[in-house]
Amino acid sequence: MSTQPAPVVTAFDWVPDFAKGLVRDLRVRWAFEEIGAPYAIEKFGAGQPRPEGYVDWQPFEQVPALRDGELELFETGAILLYLAEKHGALLPKDEQARWQAIAWVFAGLNSVEPSFQRYFAYHVFNAGKDWTEGAKEAVVPLVRQKLKRVSDALGNKDWLAGEFSIADIMMVTVLNGLRDTDFLGEFPSLKAYHARGTARPAYQRALKAQLDDFTGAPPAAAA
Amino acid sequence: MSTQPAPVVTAFDWVPDFAKGLVRDLRVRWAFEEIGAPYAIEKFGAGQPRPEGYVDWQPFEQVPALRDGELELFETGAILLYLAEKHGALLPKDEQARWQAIAWVFAGLNSVEPSFQRYFAYHVFNAGKDWTEGAKEAVVPLVRQKLKRVSDALGNKDWLAGEFSIADIMMVTVLNGLRDTDFLGEFPSLKAYHARGTARPAYQRALKAQLDDFTGAPPAAAA
Repeated sequence: MSTQPAPVVTAFDWVPDFAKGLVRDLRVRWAFEEIGAPYAIEKFGAGQPRPEGYVDWQPFEQVPALRDGELELFETGAILLYLAEKHGALLPKDEQARWQAIAWVFAGLNSVEPSFQRYFAYHVFNAGKDWTEGAKEAVVPLVRQKLKRVSDALGNKDWLAGEFSIADIMMVTVLNGLRDTDFLGEFPSLKAYHARGTARPAYQRALKAQLDDFTGAPPAAAA
Repeated sequence: MSTQPAPVVTAFDWVPDFAKGLVRDLRVRWAFEEIGAPYAIEKFGAGQPRPEGYVDWQPFEQVPALRDGELELFETGAILLYLAEKHGALLPKDEQARWQAIAWVFAGLNSVEPSFQRYFAYHVFNAGKDWTEGAKEAVVPLVRQKLKRVSDALGNKDWLAGEFSIADIMMVTVLNGLRDTDFLGEFPSLKAYHARGTARPAYQRALKAQLDDFTGAPPAAAA
């Protein structure tokens, strides 16, 4: 048995209800669960000051960050790629399919998620302001266009790169961001893809672990 | 001499003036120039229908996409990573520094650029609408926060991961997105970093090549 301690993932011990199940440590927990490798959680409140020195580890003071032995790493996409390479898992062996999967990890984060986040920024964080509806209407066609693109690319495949990979961990959790909207219902094959992903036992374990870890109190100002 | 043809990168032969020097094939051209490897351009108009089958290569029908022998790849971040791995270049050898560089590629695309794109969406694409100013004001603090984070993380280093890497190709070109604003002037060390990046001969060659390739006519509707 190795005496190496389990890798550490940072997470929040409290978030507002609308963020539960959406915080990005879910992506990393899911990868660990699929691989079957242990991990430990280091957690703190979303509305609290970060532990001293955390900014040197995670420059944006967000979660998750990963510590594996001497290695400290940030950005969910990079962490997923690191875990896939380390364990030789969650990426196809075939070179074209492997790079396709890596491309979809980037696509989830850069070509798809930002439009959802814009919608979310208006829908949740700035709801009710006099400019919100105009801004929201302007981004809706973009959200639909992105969903159509992913749906077309998926076609009749089960998973984006053929076999299940970190691309699907990324895209399924990116689609989670639309859970309070009706968009996904407009794209039945994408809705089925999302359901296929979230039905995986490893996803269920990861989600339960994130939710169970919300044992903290809200920040004083919000109490 | 290898008889393998040079890898192909897709690019536009026409874009509106505000996009010149910002189209993302610049990132891939820059990487090729730093590596000193030849590449070929396959181009078409930004406002024109894409070549048949392009959507199977680039699911969002954007540029750039890369073809290298049998391999077809999309997403700028994935292409930069592929080129770095293929040529053993533009990534530090040290494991911590290597993953730090990869993390910054993701950070440029996901933690930094989306806030700039939101600002740009209001500033350019929706200028003058009755909701634009409110939306723009709401995103300005986010733009400043992201710049401060990158500036703090850079500290007094020349490059994000110590030596020049694909992280800097990504971040310098992400910062290009603010060229019509005064934001960068608020962060002198970041402004100097940007100037250091764009002064590199490989960047200058890549930019000239992109600009020289705009030989096409605007789409009929805009003519």
